This record gives sequence, C-alpha cells and structure tokens, in this order.
Amino acid sequence: MTEALNVEQAAARLRQAGSVLILCHKNPDGDTIGCGSALYHALAALGKTAAVLCADPIPPRFAYTAPRLFRGEFEPELVAAVDVAGLQLFGDKGLMPAYSRRVDLCIDHHAGNSGYAQYTLVDAGAAAAAELLCQVIEAMGVELTPQIADCLYTGLATDTGCFRFSNTTARTHRIAARLIEAGARIEALNTRLFATKSRGQMEAERIARSHLEYHLDGRCALIWLDRDETAASGADPSDLEELTSLPIGIEGVKVGLTFRQQPGGSWRVSIRAAHGVDACAIARRLGGGGHLRAAGCELLGTLDNVKQAVLAEAEAVLDAAAEEES
Amino acid sequence: MTEALNVEQAAARLRQAGSVLILCHKNPDGDTIGCGSALYHALAALGKTAAVLCADPIPPRFAYTAPRLFRGEFEPELVAAVDVAGLQLFGDKGLMPAYSRRVDLCIDHHAGNSGYAQYTLVDAGAAAAAELLCQVIEAMGVELTPQIADCLYTGLATDTGCFRFSNTTARTHRIAARLIEAGARIEALNTRLFATKSRGQMEAERIARSHLEYHLDGRCALIWLDRDETAASGADPSDLEELTSLPIGIEGVKVGLTFRQQPGGSWRVSIRAAHGVDACAIARRLGGGGHLRAAGCELLGTLDNVKQAVLAEAEAVLDAAAEEES
Repeated sequence: MTEALNVEQAAARLRQAGSVLILCHKNPDGDTIGCGSALYHALAALGKTAAVLCADPIPPRFAYTAPRLFRGEFEPELVAAVDVAGLQLFGDKGLMPAYSRRVDLCIDHHAGNSGYAQYTLVDAGAAAAAELLCQVIEAMGVELTPQIADCLYTGLATDTGCFRFSNTTARTHRIAARLIEAGARIEALNTRLFATKSRGQMEAERIARSHLEYHLDGRCALIWLDRDETAASGADPSDLEELTSLPIGIEGVKVGLTFRQQPGGSWRVSIRAAHGVDACAIARRLGGGGHLRAAGCELLGTLDNVKQAVLAEAEAVLDAAAEEES
Repeated sequence: MTEALNVEQAAARLRQAGSVLILCHKNPDGDTIGCGSALYHALAALGKTAAVLCADPIPPRFAYTAPRLFRGEFEPELVAAVDVAGLQLFGDKGLMPAYSRRVDLCIDHHAGNSGYAQYTLVDAGAAAAAELLCQVIEAMGVELTPQIADCLYTGLATDTGCFRFSNTTARTHRIAARLIEAGARIEALNTRLFATKSRGQMEAERIARSHLEYHLDGRCALIWLDRDETAASGADPSDLEELTSLPIGIEGVKVGLTFRQQPGGSWRVSIRAAHGVDACAIARRLGGGGHLRAAGCELLGTLDNVKQAVLAEAEAVLDAAAEEES
C-alpha cells in the first residue's frame, strides 16, 4: 500500500533527500520529460545531486529540456517517478529495472495510478503532471527559472494539445501564466512543439489527403499512404503520427482510419473513434488493441483487401453503437 | 484627433448610453464577432437597447454567439466598434456606411489603429480585442455569464491559435482562467473552433495544399485558392482562415503567404512571418496592414502578377531583416 502525500509533504521529502534519481516513463512524451527535467533543475538549484533515467532516449525535439542523464554515478537516497501510472510503463532497458521496483515518491496525474511507490502524490484533476509538479517546486522554495519554466510549460502544453483538450482547467491556464512570467519562452516552444513541419511531412500529408475517401454513409473517413509514397515524400515515418487525427476531425465522421504501409509491405491501421464508438473493439476483431478512442492493428494483404476487412468491422461496431443509442 | 480612454473610462461611456450600436469588421473573425456578441449580451444585461452590425453575415460556426443583429430599429445614442483598426475595414454594405463614419468609441488591440473614433481604447499588448473587452465588461459591473464567457473565449482562442501564437501573454492565460470559471464551455468551443472541419474545408485544404510552392530559396512558402476552386470545394469562404497558418508552419520558412481570390476577382493576401521578420511591413508596401507576425492586403490582377508583387516585397523585407541580423 502506498501512502498518499499532499504537495507540501512531497516537497518536504524532496528537500530532505541529498541525492535524487528521477524516473520517466518509456516512449517518453513532453510531460514525463518536461517534469523529469524540471525536477532535475530544481534539485540542482538546491545544490543536490540529481539525474534523470528513462528506458528510451529523449526525443531530439525535447533536447532543450537538458537534464543530466543518469549513468549509475551515484546511489540515490530517494527515487522519484514523474507521470508514471504503473510499473509496466517504466520499461526494462538499461539501469531501469534496478530502480523502478524501489520508487520512493511518485508524482502523477493519472486517476488509475497503481500505487506502486511508497509515497504517492496524485491529482487526477491536473491536466498534466507538470501542473502538479509546478506546485511542488514552488513548495520546495525553488525559484522558477526560465529553464524550469520551459520544462514545465512543455509538459503542460503537450498534454493539453496546447490548452485545447477537455482536461484544460482554469488552474492549467493560471499555471501557464505563472510560467510565462517566470520566463518560459513560449513562442519558441510552441513553434517547436506544434507549428513546424518538415517539407517531407507536408508532402506526405498532401499525398495522404489526396487519398481521402468517405465510407459507410459518411460515418467513416479514411486516408492512406503506401511505402513508395512515404519514401518519395522524404518524410521520416516516425513523423507521420499526426496523420491519424485527420479523418476523425471531419464533420459527421464517427470512425477515422489511417492506413500506412510498412517497409515490409504490411499495413499499419490507426483507428480513431468519436464519442460513443469503441475504436478498440474494431481493432480487437482484427488482432490489434488500444484505447476506447484510439486503437490500431497491423494487417497483411492488398490495400483493397485490408480496407474491406477494416470497414466491415467498423460497420459492425458502428451499427452496434447506433442500436445501443436508440 | 481621437481621445484615448482607459478601461474604466470606456466602461463608463458604455454605462452612460441608453442605446448602443456595435460595429464589427467585414469578413468577420472570431474576435470581432466574439467581442460584438459579448458586448451585446453585457449591455442587454444592463437593460440597454443594443444590437450588432457587420457588413458580412456572421459565419455559421460562430452562430452560438447569438447577438441581436441591427436592422435599423433604433437610433443609437452611442456607436461602438470592436476589433476594427481602420475605417476601410468596416466595409460598405447595407446600413454600415451610415454608422461607420460616426463611431463614438473604439475598443481595439491593433497598434496601427487609425484613430477614426471620437474615443479610443487601444491596447496593442492584448492578444485579442476580447482580452481588453473582458476587462471593460468587468469594469461595467456586469457579471460574466456563461454566454458572455463563451463569446469572449471565442475571441481569445481564435486570435491566439488557441494560446499558441506569440501574442499570448500571462494576462491572456489569466483571462482564459477567469472565463472558464465564469462557465465558458471550452470543450465544445475548442472542438467546434479547432478540431472539426467540414468536408468542404477538407477539400479546399486539399486543393490549396496541392498548390504549395517554395520561393526565395525556401524562405517563403505560398498556397493559393481561386474563386472557382473555393466554390467547387463547397467550403464556406469564412471557414478558410486556417489555411493562412499552413505555409508559415514549414521548417525554414520565414514568410508564409496565402492567396484567396474573392468573389469579385481580387486576391486577398494573408502574410505570416517568423520571428525577426515584419509581416506588416510587407503588407503596408502593398496598401494593407496588420500586426508584426500576421498582416494582409487585397490586390487586383492575375494570380501571377499578384504573386510577383508580394514576393518582391517579401524579398525586400527578408533581405533587410537578414542584414539587420548580420
């Protein structure tokens, strides 16, 4: 059983520790990296030994958060995890397994946090773990420097789609205001995080959009990109994730599908669903999985066969959802 | 010469008037409509006769702002303009010319406001006129209802690209927080304003993207849409504002241009500039105006002529900026 802490208690534990190892989740996003880095800079400002450990490399787009990375140089008095809801999310690469089973303090905003740490500060009303960590850092008596503000803003902005998603609250905006006053370079950050695409991404998007099709009486929209087109676009395949939000963003569409052919020839299918439709149910029928609103699977075959297979399952799930509603 | 007012003085003038006509700018966007509607609801709450006049229809996506539209039913004691930087922006359709030459009070956030009104409240540091109007409405002693908050949030969110653009300040976020506490339905608004596109918008965007061109050694990117394409797409022309952010979002681009042909045949040019480049300087050389990062003008001629004219000015401004930097 974990013991629940409040902001002040969590801050006190961090202040008491002489050295702190900060753990982020695998496949790191802006919130876990932003929090890990902000906490590192805050602890360093207090003269403590601190470093960040993540099972995967920090994506280059977050390089400016500039934490010290842990390479086993010290034995931490305290192990803290940020934005990590459960043990399986730490991953098992490198030094991680040696520390992820002995987390002292977890700071998180997931309602489903499994309570794996000895002490846990969870606030499911926080839009990002950064919203919570900002309060902890202030309670630690650390001044919000521009560097810390940049890191916290990164978590806040990426987890809220830049204040667009429904998790955004009045407090989220107030903390953004504080971070701007503390010197967060929001113009450069927003440009980097949200507004810049490579020419290759633009070209891949142009091709995918030119393949837009409507099916099932307009309840389903799909786009696709085969491997030759991906190669010709010059885009890095890892930069094409945003394509998956295009079809579901069209008026009236309940299921949005994106088909990306992989280098081996198979088709990676990304399924997005509107409120009331279960994307994961569609994916599961095809051997995949995921969440209620975002799921996926990978299929072999010609594009036409793959499309027909996915559309058939989408139709079944859509019809079931319509029946339930009526 | 106009007389400058502060927030309290502007609020007092509005409180003193028995009836108020509120003018918006032509080709209305979320800020002018949001402000016009918010001010209408605030005045109505004080029991005053008020209505909104705009040379163009209110776009359907802003229908929820629900102002009373002016049809000449009363002779206003006070004529107020919101988010209108100069006389030419009123347009000359319908009843507009009868009132746009006798504006008593202008509330605006454009640094280049021409001072056409008898009294002017301008704050160029406000990200949106709605940021300023929120303070005026509070100074009027009107409670921020959910309806008023929705209208003000519309102006704030649309003029800042949902808090992404560089005009966003700590005050912008604090006002967003106030509006959320006042009941602004940000989930529904953000979905409507930012996450949902009509089939027509998707088609217009597909066409515009297919016209993507790079110029000036990649420092400039442009897209265009002629009036036949706009008509064929089925998109409402007022829903094509988002196109203007596409070219400037490409890596390495310093000036992003969007050319939209108007029904009369002229070309509306939207100019967006990266840090260190003055979009307004480009627009001014072509008879237009705007802000440092976002400006525009309207030109007659063939697409090729218009492109060449704008590219020549963009090159001059880009070269001057590069020289200043070096």
